[in-house]
Amino acid sequence: MSAYFERLTQAIQTNRSHLCLGLDLRPEEMPEGVWRDTDGFVHFGRSIVEATADLICAYKPNLAFYEAMGGGGYHTLRKILEAIPPSIPAIADGKRADIGSTARAYALAVFDRLGFDAVTLNPYLGHDALEPFFEHADCGCYVLCLTSNPGAADFQVPNDLYLEVARRASEWNKNGNIGLVVGATQSERIADVRRAAPDLPFLIPGVGAQGGDLEASVRAAANDRPDRGFIINVSRSVLYASSGNDYAAAARREAERLRAEIEEVLSRIDPQGGVVE
Amino acid sequence: MSAYFERLTQAIQTNRSHLCLGLDLRPEEMPEGVWRDTDGFVHFGRSIVEATADLICAYKPNLAFYEAMGGGGYHTLRKILEAIPPSIPAIADGKRADIGSTARAYALAVFDRLGFDAVTLNPYLGHDALEPFFEHADCGCYVLCLTSNPGAADFQVPNDLYLEVARRASEWNKNGNIGLVVGATQSERIADVRRAAPDLPFLIPGVGAQGGDLEASVRAAANDRPDRGFIINVSRSVLYASSGNDYAAAARREAERLRAEIEEVLSRIDPQGGVVE
Repeated sequence: MSAYFERLTQAIQTNRSHLCLGLDLRPEEMPEGVWRDTDGFVHFGRSIVEATADLICAYKPNLAFYEAMGGGGYHTLRKILEAIPPSIPAIADGKRADIGSTARAYALAVFDRLGFDAVTLNPYLGHDALEPFFEHADCGCYVLCLTSNPGAADFQVPNDLYLEVARRASEWNKNGNIGLVVGATQSERIADVRRAAPDLPFLIPGVGAQGGDLEASVRAAANDRPDRGFIINVSRSVLYASSGNDYAAAARREAERLRAEIEEVLSRIDPQGGVVE
Repeated sequence: MSAYFERLTQAIQTNRSHLCLGLDLRPEEMPEGVWRDTDGFVHFGRSIVEATADLICAYKPNLAFYEAMGGGGYHTLRKILEAIPPSIPAIADGKRADIGSTARAYALAVFDRLGFDAVTLNPYLGHDALEPFFEHADCGCYVLCLTSNPGAADFQVPNDLYLEVARRASEWNKNGNIGLVVGATQSERIADVRRAAPDLPFLIPGVGAQGGDLEASVRAAANDRPDRGFIINVSRSVLYASSGNDYAAAARREAERLRAEIEEVLSRIDPQGGVVE
């Protein structure tokens, strides 16, 4: 297992949590009292991190929202990353990929310049577009497999492309640092991906605002790895749990609730795959 | 035709050029005299633009190289974009895509915050991940179809996925602002894409450092649109034509040579598809 997945497993076990929190700062959804500028965004992001750092196993800022802030966006991101305790890994949700030499530049940007521990990647360009990320053996690389949006039906599902991606990602996993993004909105297909890639850890978005089924997703994804083979990402339902000044406390309550719900489902599943209940 | 493709066509006709220049600033390949800092990169980029602006039809900075610069990267990009004459469109090569609400943030970042005229997009997540870009009707959206790297064989070629992407992109083109990225390293397949999407303009990378066949690519891609249906991107062979202080003049000579080579091939192809020679 790579250093990233060891750290993630440690965070999962220490915080008894498979909950990953998406730090997706959407100005239009932020609580009323938050200033709509760099200082306000940094304060909001850090407050959320401080309120939740003992309840979650990883943070996942989506780079799009920081790029949408304009000139101060990456500065805001850096300041929020600084607030994340070293024991909690940070995943850059960038869905990056490009031809070899350009992918090296993206890997440098994400892992070295921004200091992320893991990244999400888009498989359309194939192996050599992802290999420069995989070569960062200490870092985690989550390859998009089945996404949580309606457009997954356009190219991922026909000809079972998503299962071919899962199989190929397993083959590529020489450094033990590859995972898959598998959306919760199609929990019946998560089981197919688990069969195609029995050992790869899943990053599961789509629970919460997107309506994915949490219990069905956990049941389909869990395996007998020490990390149980998955983390579940939520973003909006925690970040914007309250539109008032109590947003940090409200985020904490919602994160606590989701953490408990996941662990409760997990407690009823035998690590060998059987159902305990 | 969208405002973007009208501007692109105007630039093609004014400069008699189908050459797009990739502004991919790779510190390790830069001429010796260029300072390896923000000021040096800005000076290099602007010098290249000033030396080539009457020879090319578009500039295409790949965002990866600016992100790899760290904190000053997007500042460097903005300063270089300022030097591009308004008559020449700028394409953000970011290969972006994400689920709907996040794609909106990326579109905001690229079109509104950075002021690009067009963008490259990755189709893996399907239609709703691209629609927020398409909705910017004045801007151009080049969807990755067949890429120029070896990994194109992993997922794009099996089951003719790249042709399905070409067909779907044609269906999505309600605003007349969609094009396709079709790599020059597989010129025999460019003709297949042209049959699947007779009307979509192609952005063709892979000529030059990547070894694609320029003449075969032009012959396969050209159609009877006013813009002749394609632009060809080169980067390294122009930007780093000289490792000395004469890099701008050397870039100009190489751009002139490539422009002439493309136009010469095109002059031998009848707009109705027949061969003139």
